[in-house]
Amino acid sequence: MTRAFSHAMMRVHDLETTKRFFVDGLGLVEKATYVNDKGGYTMAVLNVVGDAQFEVHLTFNHAVEAYQGGRNFGHLAFVVDNIYDTCRRILDLGFTVARPPREGHMAFLRTPEGISIELVQDGEKLAASEPWVSMPNDGAW
Amino acid sequence: MTRAFSHAMMRVHDLETTKRFFVDGLGLVEKATYVNDKGGYTMAVLNVVGDAQFEVHLTFNHAVEAYQGGRNFGHLAFVVDNIYDTCRRILDLGFTVARPPREGHMAFLRTPEGISIELVQDGEKLAASEPWVSMPNDGAW
Repeated sequence: MTRAFSHAMMRVHDLETTKRFFVDGLGLVEKATYVNDKGGYTMAVLNVVGDAQFEVHLTFNHAVEAYQGGRNFGHLAFVVDNIYDTCRRILDLGFTVARPPREGHMAFLRTPEGISIELVQDGEKLAASEPWVSMPNDGAW
Repeated sequence: MTRAFSHAMMRVHDLETTKRFFVDGLGLVEKATYVNDKGGYTMAVLNVVGDAQFEVHLTFNHAVEAYQGGRNFGHLAFVVDNIYDTCRRILDLGFTVARPPREGHMAFLRTPEGISIELVQDGEKLAASEPWVSMPNDGAW
């Protein structure tokens, strides 16, 4: 029997850039980063503040491997306190809002290496607001 | 700021078979299944018992689309109360244990459509036990 969800792991080529996406962009915190020379990888462990159980693991394999995206895995979704503020930070950091929060409650981002991330507004949806209402999609998600 | 993790979504071609993997195999519960004819999809929402917040969403798009796997998304990990019992159920159901729990605390499965799932033994690791100690890997994870 499954007791709990533990973590989601993503492979990345550029650990620092994806850390910026999750930490500076989404407000996750870096719990630890382990360098395992014998295993040939570096792993960053990120937490959602106030949720000690769930972790995002970012794995950088030292031996370069060209990863591709796939469509069978869809996305990871996070609840945010203000979807406009989060999307603004993502854009200011140079990352992609693929599907803007036009109705004030749902948006899709892409991590720097193309994994789809959904944002869900906590509680009631926000009043529709520019520039979001008129912002077109930016690629797939 | 991110308040909480919400869900992980996977696209599937065969909803019933992947539901069996998660419900009969891992012991998740089916919270609801929505058929959205206008949107052209059916979505099953699964929960970990005792964790009302986190959900697994399985999306079946009615218009057939050939999904591929990718390596940039790594895996989702779940904590289980007995890793041997869970792996035994997965094998009995005809699913794949890619990396058996040889040391009694960690294993990798594959969903029927190839997504990698890690199992982590809750608490102390179990005493090493056959057939797990001698079981070879079955493909990648």
